[in-house]
Amino acid sequence: MSKKYILTVTCPDKSGIIADITSCIAGNGGNILNLAQHTAVDIDMFFCRIQFSASDSFEIESFSQSFKKLEKNYDLIWHVFDTGKKKRVAVLVSKTSHCLYELLLKHADGELDCEIPVIISNHPDLAHVATAFHIPFFQVDTKKGKAEYESDLNQILENYSIDLVVLARYMQVMSADFCDKWKNRCINIHHGFLPAFKGAKPYHQAWEKGVKIIGATGHIATQDLDQGPIIFQDVIRVNDTRSIDEFIRMGKDVERHVLYETVRRYLAHAVFFYKGRTFVIE
Amino acid sequence: MSKKYILTVTCPDKSGIIADITSCIAGNGGNILNLAQHTAVDIDMFFCRIQFSASDSFEIESFSQSFKKLEKNYDLIWHVFDTGKKKRVAVLVSKTSHCLYELLLKHADGELDCEIPVIISNHPDLAHVATAFHIPFFQVDTKKGKAEYESDLNQILENYSIDLVVLARYMQVMSADFCDKWKNRCINIHHGFLPAFKGAKPYHQAWEKGVKIIGATGHIATQDLDQGPIIFQDVIRVNDTRSIDEFIRMGKDVERHVLYETVRRYLAHAVFFYKGRTFVIE
Amino acid sequence: MSKKYILTVTCPDKSGIIADITSCIAGNGGNILNLAQHTAVDIDMFFCRIQFSASDSFEIESFSQSFKKLEKNYDLIWHVFDTGKKKRVAVLVSKTSHCLYELLLKHADGELDCEIPVIISNHPDLAHVATAFHIPFFQVDTKKGKAEYESDLNQILENYSIDLVVLARYMQVMSADFCDKWKNRCINIHHGFLPAFKGAKPYHQAWEKGVKIIGATGHIATQDLDQGPIIFQDVIRVNDTRSIDEFIRMGKDVERHVLYETVRRYLAHAVFFYKGRTFVIE
Amino acid sequence: MSKKYILTVTCPDKSGIIADITSCIAGNGGNILNLAQHTAVDIDMFFCRIQFSASDSFEIESFSQSFKKLEKNYDLIWHVFDTGKKKRVAVLVSKTSHCLYELLLKHADGELDCEIPVIISNHPDLAHVATAFHIPFFQVDTKKGKAEYESDLNQILENYSIDLVVLARYMQVMSADFCDKWKNRCINIHHGFLPAFKGAKPYHQAWEKGVKIIGATGHIATQDLDQGPIIFQDVIRVNDTRSIDEFIRMGKDVERHVLYETVRRYLAHAVFFYKGRTFVIE
Repeated sequence: MSKKYILTVTCPDKSGIIADITSCIAGNGGNILNLAQHTAVDIDMFFCRIQFSASDSFEIESFSQSFKKLEKNYDLIWHVFDTGKKKRVAVLVSKTSHCLYELLLKHADGELDCEIPVIISNHPDLAHVATAFHIPFFQVDTKKGKAEYESDLNQILENYSIDLVVLARYMQVMSADFCDKWKNRCINIHHGFLPAFKGAKPYHQAWEKGVKIIGATGHIATQDLDQGPIIFQDVIRVNDTRSIDEFIRMGKDVERHVLYETVRRYLAHAVFFYKGRTFVIE
Repeated sequence: MSKKYILTVTCPDKSGIIADITSCIAGNGGNILNLAQHTAVDIDMFFCRIQFSASDSFEIESFSQSFKKLEKNYDLIWHVFDTGKKKRVAVLVSKTSHCLYELLLKHADGELDCEIPVIISNHPDLAHVATAFHIPFFQVDTKKGKAEYESDLNQILENYSIDLVVLARYMQVMSADFCDKWKNRCINIHHGFLPAFKGAKPYHQAWEKGVKIIGATGHIATQDLDQGPIIFQDVIRVNDTRSIDEFIRMGKDVERHVLYETVRRYLAHAVFFYKGRTFVIE
Repeated sequence: MSKKYILTVTCPDKSGIIADITSCIAGNGGNILNLAQHTAVDIDMFFCRIQFSASDSFEIESFSQSFKKLEKNYDLIWHVFDTGKKKRVAVLVSKTSHCLYELLLKHADGELDCEIPVIISNHPDLAHVATAFHIPFFQVDTKKGKAEYESDLNQILENYSIDLVVLARYMQVMSADFCDKWKNRCINIHHGFLPAFKGAKPYHQAWEKGVKIIGATGHIATQDLDQGPIIFQDVIRVNDTRSIDEFIRMGKDVERHVLYETVRRYLAHAVFFYKGRTFVIE
Repeated sequence: MSKKYILTVTCPDKSGIIADITSCIAGNGGNILNLAQHTAVDIDMFFCRIQFSASDSFEIESFSQSFKKLEKNYDLIWHVFDTGKKKRVAVLVSKTSHCLYELLLKHADGELDCEIPVIISNHPDLAHVATAFHIPFFQVDTKKGKAEYESDLNQILENYSIDLVVLARYMQVMSADFCDKWKNRCINIHHGFLPAFKGAKPYHQAWEKGVKIIGATGHIATQDLDQGPIIFQDVIRVNDTRSIDEFIRMGKDVERHVLYETVRRYLAHAVFFYKGRTFVIE
């Protein structure tokens, strides 16, 4: 029986790189299923994501050993993932349920390749949703003060061996320390089309500006609020007969879709971080 | 034979307003062809656009006299337009032709309800396009200094009895005086999705930010650069394998489309200005 | 306190109609909140939907009496609805849950203006979803033969005083008798972009044809399979690297969205039926 | 100085194929700039498009010789193109100009990588457009009878050494012989969303069906009218207040865009034909 792996490679563009990478995979008994690569001509960088299968005798360590030999020549940043080892995702929520339901329903439908072992909230309102999906639910107490409550949060995340934190309309700003600890491993959904409409009440801002299209943005949480690298965005046209309440209603569908697509791309190891932005290579 | 008119009404929302307006039109021999209205519940304002036909004996003055009686009761702002009198539009361009061609081709196809009696540029490059469409072309000299060159510009606009100025990728910032003189009568196309990416090189800004969707915005020119009321916007999805040059290429199609749709809505008297934003009521 | 009503009017286009309708509403103490009208110039027909409020003393019967006087002059088809009386909707499902969840979650969020008193299925699989939302669930036995099983179905629908039947990926073709009995009161979601790809396995058909865009269609169920009047459609771009399974996965999001938007428009009395098609006037 | 080549490969999926192809390119001194591949899991076929550069000493013949050795092992269909040799495209038109202008303006802007040495029509109306762009214009006489007039047509196409024929709203059905002679080298724009609305007056058909979205389809001309492999499609939402004339007006923008994107993909050698459909691999 065969197992599947994903290899991601980032390096300065240089002739021969693809042939060398693919030969190394073949030489270790890997069979390429899918190869997506992109040379960003504006910065002369090469990004590559390769899915390959290999027999049970394939060993990640020995592959890594032989792949390491390319490192020096090409100045590589690379990772190889065993797709059989599912990422463990914690979902953080406050009171609105649409993003949480989206993740749980997609997961139940086999469309999110991860485990969701825990749901955490600063409010009790969505406990029943967690229960309906048989997932442990924890309520954290933000009134303790940010440092202390985030310490509780981190304790739960550690206890459940979490790989990725997803803020699914979690209405708390995370501290710089938290963002640092979970660097590139904490995803937020912002209910506005970034970089416009950062911060609070983006739909109110959008309505007052009279924009004709609204959107949502899935991005990495960083200490600059709503400024982290963008992973996915989507928009919806709104005509001027729509009220702010309708913006909010229509926006929910965009938000949940964007959050799902953001997490899906992340879990597929399709998101490359480079110089403050992402390159999503599928 | 019948003529067509458009009546636009803005006022605080109040019971009975539609019945009173439509009765006044009927009482003056008008036949409503199309009525679009919207009550913006967030600010309790009423916007209404009515297209009606009337026989040749209908007189705008006597209609206006009788309509004036509603003014006091409803605190109305209103205008009535004879659609037979076409607006005269000046197109200002620099070196890129795609927006200019869009306006000229749509006009030639009967899809822009106006006259285009003059094209003005700060460069000679597009003179041949004007010539091909048999439209006078003027080149203005920006090196004279802003005040003097804008005075030349205004002279041309006056000579041609211009009603609406369209900046079709005209790469000059207009002075506060010019924006004031042409208040709500000067349209600009910004090649970015406002309110993000104001100012120069918006595609470069968008690429560096790693956005996944780019757009263009048709708006009223005001002295706050790229900040005037938005009339129309459109977007296009860009995946991360696109270079800045491809952003620029793909953006052109969005820009020309947005500019056309912006001007078309304006000419149809579908654009209402209120508190710094527009309400487009179609 | 005021109540809200919706009046819908269909008639051949004729001068004066809007003034007469709006005056009749005003004369009966109604206050127009929203008026949407459309004259379909290709067939010279007039469609109008008016939302109005009135005090508790307003009586639908006396309004109807006075409105009836317009009938003869204008050859009207019209209805007036008290929006306080919510429609009762039965949802029919088979094994896939995404459309059912969409309706239940939107309903729970206050975004579907109806009651959902019963869920019916030809399989037991989704009983747990009904239970989670505290809605009675019935399983019908299609093996009894179409006539007998549909009789059971009708009995349940009658018992629950159902106004609208929604087939939410219900994998049974309804009989001509059933479609007749529920004429214009039974909505189906077809997982293809009609009129292409009628019948079974539309995603397989689409993939084999190599289309670049797939879609879903919300329509009235009629005895011509997937041929009834269309109420809402949406699409999604699929590139040629997508497999049939991915078409199915991506299609689910379009299906649930289309079904929701279809039902929402129907419940808002925005759907006019005329000559085998709909006119959705919002 | 380096030259650029594109290699396209189609074959049954088999382990090792990418490594062998990329090694062969590297072995011949080629430098891969871009590699896009796709394994269609539903039919177990492999499609690959590789852009590579090579020094002036690179010879297509010797590369082909060495690449041929892979043929047997992998059952390859393959082509290698020197991107320096531009395709020669003939544009055929009737009376409407929007598709013709689109191709000519994109070409003038450097966004269509081909030569356009000749424009042919069955009407004189668009001669002035050809003239404005300094391109020879021929009028063919369809009244001669199909065989004879198509013989004239073929003569012109031969005289100009045409590689690709583009029917840019050319309102003539081509004969089976013509489609055969130009197999996979003749592109048509159909102003409807295929496979729905084949044949004449698709916008009328769409309006009468009451669809909520209309579209256009760029496809290979075959003797089954509007049934050839689809290369690109796009759509636009139409609400029910739109008349047939407005469908036609709005459709024009979709048509011209679809035609441009179709031709662009074709010229980029991104279009693979397999079992009656295309796979566009970018």
